[in-house]
Amino acid sequence: MASPVNAPRGMRDFLPAEKATRERVLGVIRENYFAHGFDEIETPVMEDSSRLHAGLGGDNEKLAFGVLKRGLTTDDLHNATDSLELADLGLRFDLTVPLARFYATHRAELPKVFRAIQIAPVWRAERPQKGRYRQFVQCDIDIIGESGPLAEVELISATAATVRALGIEGCSIRINDRRLLTSMLTVLGFPASEHSAVLITLDKLDKLGDTGVIEELKDRAFPAEPVAALAAFLQRPVASMDLGFGEAAIRASLPEGVDDTAITELAAIGEMLGEVDRAVLEFDPFLVRGMGYYTGTIFEVTHPEFGYSLGGGGRYDGMIGRFLGSDVAAAGFSLGFERLVDLVDLPDALGTDATALLYDDSVAPATLLQLKSDLIAAGKRVRLERSTKNTRVLLDQLASQGFRRVATVKPDTTTVDDLQWRELEAPAG
Amino acid sequence: MASPVNAPRGMRDFLPAEKATRERVLGVIRENYFAHGFDEIETPVMEDSSRLHAGLGGDNEKLAFGVLKRGLTTDDLHNATDSLELADLGLRFDLTVPLARFYATHRAELPKVFRAIQIAPVWRAERPQKGRYRQFVQCDIDIIGESGPLAEVELISATAATVRALGIEGCSIRINDRRLLTSMLTVLGFPASEHSAVLITLDKLDKLGDTGVIEELKDRAFPAEPVAALAAFLQRPVASMDLGFGEAAIRASLPEGVDDTAITELAAIGEMLGEVDRAVLEFDPFLVRGMGYYTGTIFEVTHPEFGYSLGGGGRYDGMIGRFLGSDVAAAGFSLGFERLVDLVDLPDALGTDATALLYDDSVAPATLLQLKSDLIAAGKRVRLERSTKNTRVLLDQLASQGFRRVATVKPDTTTVDDLQWRELEAPAG
Repeated sequence: MASPVNAPRGMRDFLPAEKATRERVLGVIRENYFAHGFDEIETPVMEDSSRLHAGLGGDNEKLAFGVLKRGLTTDDLHNATDSLELADLGLRFDLTVPLARFYATHRAELPKVFRAIQIAPVWRAERPQKGRYRQFVQCDIDIIGESGPLAEVELISATAATVRALGIEGCSIRINDRRLLTSMLTVLGFPASEHSAVLITLDKLDKLGDTGVIEELKDRAFPAEPVAALAAFLQRPVASMDLGFGEAAIRASLPEGVDDTAITELAAIGEMLGEVDRAVLEFDPFLVRGMGYYTGTIFEVTHPEFGYSLGGGGRYDGMIGRFLGSDVAAAGFSLGFERLVDLVDLPDALGTDATALLYDDSVAPATLLQLKSDLIAAGKRVRLERSTKNTRVLLDQLASQGFRRVATVKPDTTTVDDLQWRELEAPAG
Repeated sequence: MASPVNAPRGMRDFLPAEKATRERVLGVIRENYFAHGFDEIETPVMEDSSRLHAGLGGDNEKLAFGVLKRGLTTDDLHNATDSLELADLGLRFDLTVPLARFYATHRAELPKVFRAIQIAPVWRAERPQKGRYRQFVQCDIDIIGESGPLAEVELISATAATVRALGIEGCSIRINDRRLLTSMLTVLGFPASEHSAVLITLDKLDKLGDTGVIEELKDRAFPAEPVAALAAFLQRPVASMDLGFGEAAIRASLPEGVDDTAITELAAIGEMLGEVDRAVLEFDPFLVRGMGYYTGTIFEVTHPEFGYSLGGGGRYDGMIGRFLGSDVAAAGFSLGFERLVDLVDLPDALGTDATALLYDDSVAPATLLQLKSDLIAAGKRVRLERSTKNTRVLLDQLASQGFRRVATVKPDTTTVDDLQWRELEAPAG
């Protein structure tokens, strides 16, 4: 029978083994971002409702959990026309809105070019489903105050290094530029007023395929001519991958006549990246990224085995100005922590020096505690375990909890040297 | 002028230096608890309202932030008689209620004696004031399933070791037992029905002093005779500290006739602890601890320089049964993270290997990135900094942000060996 007492719907408890893995993965991410010159900051989990609902969070704003005002009277309830009026605070749905608010608050105390790390939970009131939770962790790096492609290069290189450090092989970083998307749609004949609407469908290319996208565009009654031009372009021969990532390859993947500036800038990013990072970079002329605030480059980490991205980001130069009053250049890259954790296989997250002392009532407790202290002082992790009749089961449990050595304390044991250690096998799998 | 854009009232942002210190301190706490055989777990920040308001959180229940139900109609608002009806979830106000819920959910998967670490934020809608925040971090260890004093000993020893590892000197651990308080009040003549009420006043002894406590008890119209007996007892000659922590010292600090069992058990805890830990243990017959759920030992970490405790805990055998249906022995010790952070002086939280590369537009970006990669591979933390006219200000800023070495990249720099390093002085203070 399932336990009648559970964590709230769509939210998870983490048991020791999972928690240890999560902390290990967070440690690797933090350490790599830090080495790349980023600084970690933290903001409260709640922001004022007015900031969460300022139009910067796109569809996610609707998913914000509202936090009840204090001291509401029944009159307040009865006079309210919308439940949001009763919430002065809300739980953040991403880390970008809080970063923009943080930067507006603390700009004077921050370096001119500010490289931020945020590793923290966010909350979305989505319908819970497999792999989609109402509380999950995001790992964001952002560079504020650098308008040149150096920002993109530092973001991509730090992210690629972090994914490599986690032992996840085979990832690509797909890249595009919002300006290329706009220019491409213009060249194909879509009027500017319809670009955002077309992009919503184009964003489903991975899911719907070429034919599906064209059908949906027809269904949505976009002008026939540009839709036909897009269909033709989608069926173009794919440019040879031998070109690698560079201006020639980018140009070959786009319709003729697309704006040159963004192509050159994108190619420059590839040139600035080191060989290892450049090798995983892929130009994707149909990469859209949902958020409306992106103004330039956009990117996404993908893995061939998964139908979803492991993270993404881009340049959002206009956004921080919304809180600050003056525009500031900004670009960021966010990794989805839960997806990374599923892919990572870090050995022995619970530590290799975990030892257990078995005892029964014949042992003086003071001796037991002294042995424990001495082992801890020698760098071991120590658990005291009362002996049970079924030693086999106990040892198996200890092994599965990451303990590798066990010793039985006897009435005449006085020092750590008296202990006879038995090695425990790590469980298979 | 203060910035018009701030974190929500009573909640804080953490800038890089503070965040780095906080993470360092958390790391030390986590590592020490872990070495002592405790396992870290995590629960969602929200729990179902019904569990938060089950009467286990004492006065803190009133301080729980409520989270609005989804999809409320205006009819729902207008029919509500209390705002709490509109909140199906709430933010946790402590880590003990979530632990009890967690244990009830996962008992079958946990060791027979479960030693839990929880290091996580909690929220209380208190009136913000100096040193009191609406979001703050608690560091709890709990032992579930061990009814003997070994639990207390492991908790005290892990906590004392952690405080020592943080370099905080001079702390004491005050200890008492709820059963001794009850027995003492009975011996002094207070009827059992009035014990909890008397304890509320007695809990203010540190704040009000002997006279203040007696006055308040008189004001609150408790029977004159036991109040007089308490007054006389409060003025007893204090037992010599030379007795150390043991049965004789405990007995000498209490009125005659107090229950022997708890005295013996308390003394046993002192005997089981190692010398270093025993030396900081102090019996305090007037230690109360506010929470009503304590059933046996209670303890508190105090520091002579501070008028508040750094943490506290005790045995709460009845509580987990409230969610589980059957009673389970439990005891815990919680450290107040924010107070610890203020006391800790960890050098160089931002790392000793932090280096900065100064550059201007004469340097090829690809070279810059290559140098950065090579330095990171050599274990350095690297920040790229665009040169400014006022180098002095830039270098001072870098020094204050923890950077210790800086080199200027020149157009002809090709490898790390070409860099000429300049050492930066750590800023005073």
